[in-house]
Amino acid sequence: MKLLEDRILKDGIVREGNILKVDSFINHQIDVLFIRQLAKEFKRLYEGEEITKILTIEASGIGIACIVAEEFGVPVVFAKKTKTVNIANDVYTTKVESFTHKNVYDIIVAKDFLNAEDKILIIDDFLAKGSALKGLIELIRFAGATIVGAGIIIEKAYQEGGGLIRDMGVRVESLARIKSMNEGKIEFIS
Amino acid sequence: MKLLEDRILKDGIVREGNILKVDSFINHQIDVLFIRQLAKEFKRLYEGEEITKILTIEASGIGIACIVAEEFGVPVVFAKKTKTVNIANDVYTTKVESFTHKNVYDIIVAKDFLNAEDKILIIDDFLAKGSALKGLIELIRFAGATIVGAGIIIEKAYQEGGGLIRDMGVRVESLARIKSMNEGKIEFIS
Repeated sequence: MKLLEDRILKDGIVREGNILKVDSFINHQIDVLFIRQLAKEFKRLYEGEEITKILTIEASGIGIACIVAEEFGVPVVFAKKTKTVNIANDVYTTKVESFTHKNVYDIIVAKDFLNAEDKILIIDDFLAKGSALKGLIELIRFAGATIVGAGIIIEKAYQEGGGLIRDMGVRVESLARIKSMNEGKIEFIS
Repeated sequence: MKLLEDRILKDGIVREGNILKVDSFINHQIDVLFIRQLAKEFKRLYEGEEITKILTIEASGIGIACIVAEEFGVPVVFAKKTKTVNIANDVYTTKVESFTHKNVYDIIVAKDFLNAEDKILIIDDFLAKGSALKGLIELIRFAGATIVGAGIIIEKAYQEGGGLIRDMGVRVESLARIKSMNEGKIEFIS
């Protein structure tokens, strides 16, 4: 999506260790009018699909998911990150590895909010190694719900996550796919 | 706001220890079409005020803040609860006490996203003891920005936060003000 690629080139900052910072419009400050344009693109991509719920993960996915959800006229459910492992039997839970923060954490969703009749579109800001997305897919499968697909804002296509998730048979639509960020120069797969 | 009070009475659950759970439409599952109605009410309440940014705190405030921000046509900035490796050192920070989780945590906002010219509307889901709101007000003051006011979905008016913040000279608009929740029966201040 050219609008997004242009914005990443203008406002994205590449930090050492191949870290792309989009804090000024997605991750810390959120340009909601811009996100609305991305939401309309997700709506176009998943036009004709039956979707009953948007699933995302806290924290930075929530705002984007809410704006996307409004396009589809459905609620958002966000998986919560938790360190306190009080595995209640009223939640679905799995583990997610964070490569940014170098730890493993539990994510949970209350069983009340995911059920076998649900048709889920997953929304998240980044896809790199795919650990968070894989965790969300697991929660959906635990619930016996249907995965319609995933909508990702930025996919680091030089990392394995996208391939891994698509190989699981899950549709993944990424609005910007980064081919490389060598020497701070961002290149996209068009 | 009657629409909200009716929804709280219908879907809110009172748990032991005066905990009000609104997980099915605000805190875990988010009914975005309903939140849009609340956002329009905040827009009406703060009509005529100049607002350049919405400030909230992760995680459950983010979705609501994004929908409200769209009404005002301004970006959201959300305070983060822990310092992450993706955040530069150039941040405003303060401490917030959580009575629900019985701990104290740091919140941060990058200096890039709060400045002296900003006119800030704070949005959050709950106001009880006022610790989070007080923290956000501190961050705004550190930046030398102007506090236009706060928009709260549910105020537990039998706790001290609302009075404390209003006594600081900050305008607080709460869409539902709970007078009491004795024996699971929720009563509002009308």
